[in-house]
Formats: sequence, structure tokens, C-alpha cells
Amino acid sequence: MRCVISLGDGTISIGERPSPRPGPGEVRVRVHAAGLNRADLLQRAGFYPAPPGVPADIPGLEFAGEVIELGEGVISPEIGERVFGITAGGAQAEEIVVASAHCAVVPESLDLVSAGGVPEVFLTAHDALRTQAQLLSGERVLVHAVGSGVGTAVVQLARAWGCETTGTARTPEKLSRAQALGLDNAILAPREIDPLAFSAQITEAAGGPIDVTADLVGGAYVTADVLASAEGGRVVLIGTLAGGRCELPILAVMSKRLRLFGTVLRPRSRDEKNAATAAFVAEVVPLLASGAVAPVIETVLPLADAEQAYELLASDTTFGKVILDCR
Amino acid sequence: MRCVISLGDGTISIGERPSPRPGPGEVRVRVHAAGLNRADLLQRAGFYPAPPGVPADIPGLEFAGEVIELGEGVISPEIGERVFGITAGGAQAEEIVVASAHCAVVPESLDLVSAGGVPEVFLTAHDALRTQAQLLSGERVLVHAVGSGVGTAVVQLARAWGCETTGTARTPEKLSRAQALGLDNAILAPREIDPLAFSAQITEAAGGPIDVTADLVGGAYVTADVLASAEGGRVVLIGTLAGGRCELPILAVMSKRLRLFGTVLRPRSRDEKNAATAAFVAEVVPLLASGAVAPVIETVLPLADAEQAYELLASDTTFGKVILDCR
Repeated sequence: MRCVISLGDGTISIGERPSPRPGPGEVRVRVHAAGLNRADLLQRAGFYPAPPGVPADIPGLEFAGEVIELGEGVISPEIGERVFGITAGGAQAEEIVVASAHCAVVPESLDLVSAGGVPEVFLTAHDALRTQAQLLSGERVLVHAVGSGVGTAVVQLARAWGCETTGTARTPEKLSRAQALGLDNAILAPREIDPLAFSAQITEAAGGPIDVTADLVGGAYVTADVLASAEGGRVVLIGTLAGGRCELPILAVMSKRLRLFGTVLRPRSRDEKNAATAAFVAEVVPLLASGAVAPVIETVLPLADAEQAYELLASDTTFGKVILDCR
Repeated sequence: MRCVISLGDGTISIGERPSPRPGPGEVRVRVHAAGLNRADLLQRAGFYPAPPGVPADIPGLEFAGEVIELGEGVISPEIGERVFGITAGGAQAEEIVVASAHCAVVPESLDLVSAGGVPEVFLTAHDALRTQAQLLSGERVLVHAVGSGVGTAVVQLARAWGCETTGTARTPEKLSRAQALGLDNAILAPREIDPLAFSAQITEAAGGPIDVTADLVGGAYVTADVLASAEGGRVVLIGTLAGGRCELPILAVMSKRLRLFGTVLRPRSRDEKNAATAAFVAEVVPLLASGAVAPVIETVLPLADAEQAYELLASDTTFGKVILDCR
């Protein structure tokens, strides 16, 4: 089968690998599409090697496709079923083997190419907002990098759950596209932020302090998140585009009784991914089926153009997902 | 009635105030003893004013005594019952009025003076370890300032729940007294810590990375806590003796999927205190009754010597609680 090859030396190429065979409890999927993620850029640079049990040199953390072979003991999904899900690697290929419990059935209304850009960002957003931060209807939600894939998922899910959303981005274009998705309050972020001033700008735009923050940017943004939080606020740390360190105002964390959660999907155990997938099926798939939320797609490129797709994502000019068509 | 007077100007004196009268759902308690807490030192210095609804100038966050009057609608506790609990202020006095739901019945085996040093530290430790960090039997627990009242409660509770404990303190005396209480691994903390080296010292002494940390010290200790944490670790921020800010290693928080909780008891709502008291009654009072855990008392001083008691606590040489005998 053809697949993307990422050796961790900064290069992306197309190669041939043997088709994988499903073990017990696994299924083989003919991949129709696989979204790109920031983590793929880290893996390309050698900073995020694949964990044991997945192909070391085939990147790809999410897939959508058709089940073509069942491993021992698999009852569901069935052969021919349209499925999507997350994986720890190997999705940017014509075929992939995944645990059957990590497959969700794609709603009829969603085509399999668009579906390839759904799992990673919607699972991440759902897990952050609901499973970890326990977001309640009517709460104020803040999301940085609102034009990222996860950012667009956070805005849509929070809106579907009756929350008011405030988002930041580095260009007016990303903000206006996010507003078209339902973002309530938009903030143009400067290149260098001053946490105190930025937090004041946030609470003013939001009409009050923030209950739940999804932080995809890191660095000094996290300091601002703490300062902008309401009593009992929750801050979920999902990305570090702006840096892996910040000053933590411990007194503010204590006096407001904040909770900070660090999160990544990839290294989670099989059982944890089962649970995250089940929660996604229960709470997100119905919203996808009804059209209340939808994948936001910057562009779809053929597998052969993977190198160009990676460059596009790295350019930081995209809004929503870059997806590889693997058919 | 006689009471301690703390005007927030750095002074502590003894004064006379009218006896308080219980409103609906409240009881009047003849206070036998009231423990001192670090927060009382902040209030003395004017940094931690009493919240609305409690006496502005009478300090005291915990009490033990005898119920002498019931407000409207109170069924439990009864007149004459021995009770203890937390309050947002006013306990360092001969009498106090508190919500009936904030009174727990003192086990027969515990005298009312010792009981006055129990509620704040054991409620804080239980709430931090169990309600917030969801500590499981067999996990590794780290506590800084192990000689503090909360520190001695954390060690005893963690031990009673089958956890291995690692504790830090600034003097060998405090460490050996903590070991007598059941502390498994003792670390003498230097005046200035280097977070990386300190975290290595912690995981070596503990025999592995830490699952749950109760941090009463703050500052650079929090950075060390993050570095010493196991995957899925929880860090509860309870105090800032060493400073109210630190550098947060965001990448470590994310990759280990840590949870950080900020906590304070005093500003919590009545309902939240009801819940914390109920959890204390269910999980801690039985351990106090059986003797599995016990208050650790540095000294008991009469109400008239309150100024001296405050100085003693501020000296940072105490091990366990300083209690005022208010009879």
C-alpha cells in the first residue's frame, strides 16, 4: 500500500509498505481520508516519535474509511461499514489497522473525506470541554487559536451546548471566519501579549470572567487564562504554539480555586481511548448527524501531495483542517 | 463574651463583644478550643479580611465546643452535644454561631480541646487528597511542609488509606517527628530549591514519580511538583509560604496529563461547606474515633495568651497545631 513516510528528519515523502493485518479485536480499514495535525509537524521534526505498537515511520492520528477485514472476535463494526476514529499513528496511508473499539460509525450525512478531519479535533475538544472541564450550559468559554482545527470544534461544540464563546486569533480573517461559525466575541491577539492587559481585554470582550478555557497556544497565554478565569474556572492546556513555559500566578489559582488540566490524546491507553471514543459517539456524533456541528476544512489534497499539505499546515495561515485524500 | 480581636493592623488583643444569637438553621456553641491557622496571620496583617456574614474583627476558622442554643428549625445537633467544625471567622471566642450543617459530632475518644485543632487541617487534607485529587489506595503521596498542621493530617490520612508518603521540611526535627507519625520518606529541604534537582531528590526518595502532591509551600516547589509527578498525577495547591508565583512547565503538564487544583476553604459557599463537612464526617471522623489518625498538637494556650500564640505560629518552629483554650 502507499503511505506517507515521516522519518523524523524533517522530510515527508511517499512510500510503499506491506498492508497491515488485523489482530484480535482489530479491524483493517481502507482509508479514504486522514486529517493532518500539529503533532504531525513535531513528528516530522523528530520531536514526537510514534509510541510502541504503531508504525514508526507512517504518520497520521485520525482516519475515516471503510472496514475491509475483521480480526478475531470482532462483532462491530461490520465489513463495509463507514467508520472514523483516532489512532496513535499510521493513518496517512491507503490502509490502517485499528482497535474495533476506536471506530465510530460515520453519520450518513457526512462524506468520508470530510469525516477524515473530524476525529482528532472533535475528540480533543469534547474531551477537554466536557470530560475534563465538565462544561455546563450557559458558561463562558474561551479558546485561543480559534482558527485551528480544535479551535473551530470548540466554538461549535460550546455553541451547541448553549455556551457563550470568546476566541482569539492572530489575523482578522481567522476571526471573521470564526464568527461565521458562531463565535460570539472575537479578539485580535498581538504578537507579544502582556498577560495582565490581555486578560482584561478577554474579560471585557466576554462580558465577565471565563469559566472554561481551551488553551492551544501556551506560553504567556496560560498566565492570562488564570487571570481571566472566574471563581471555579477550568483551564485545559492542549497546545504550546507560543511556548512550553509560563509564569503561574499560584495565589490566583488558589483564591479562585481553579483547576488546570494538561491533555494529550496520543499516549493514552487503549481503555482510555475506548472511553473517549464512546463519549464522542454519545455526545458528538449526534451533533454531526444533525448538522449542529461540522468539520471545518481548509483544503483537501491527494496523498501524493503530502509534502505540500505539511507545508501548508506549518505556514500557520490555514483555517480549520488540512486533509489528505488517501483513496 | 471574651474574644480575640484582630483589626488587620498587625496587632492581636483580647476584647469583649456581645454574645451572638443563632438565626434559622444555626446553632450557638460554647467554644472550648479553637486552633490557629496560617490564614489568621494573614488576617492579622490585613491581607485576608473576613468575608461578609462573619465578625470582621474576631478571627478563628475552626472550633470545638458544646451546643448551647438552637436557631429556628434546627433538629441536629442537639443542646449539649459536643461538636466541631470550620467557619469563615469568629471562632477564637467564648461563643460562636455557626450553621448546624457545619457541625460534626466529636468522637467520644477525643477531648474538646484537642478537637479544636482538628477541623481546618483534616477537612483541608481530606478535601485536597480525596475530593479533589481522588487519591487511590497504594498511590504515592508527596507533602511539603510536613510539619504544618495540614502536613501532619496529610501524612496520617494517606497512611490510613494505604498510600506511601514522602514529605519535606526545613529542619531534621520536623522530619523525625513526621516519621514518628508514619511518614515513609523524609527529605530535608534547602533554603533555596532548584526545581530540577529537588524533583530528582523527591522521586529518588519516593522510589518513583508522585501520584498526588499536597503543596503547602508554593513558589518553586510547584515547578518541582510538576517535574516529579507521574503520568496522570494531581497537584493540589494549598499554600504559598515560599511565594505566590512559579514557572509552570506547560509541556510537562500536558505530556503527563497532570491536573493542578487551587484550593481554599474559607470563601466557599454554605452548600460547599455542607458537602465538605459531610465528607469529613463520613471519611475522617471514623478514623479519629478509632485512633487511626489524631490531631498533632504543638501547644495549647489560654485565650488570654492569644498574642503569644500568634507569635509562636509565626515563628515557623511549631510542629502541628497551636490551639487556644477558650473556656
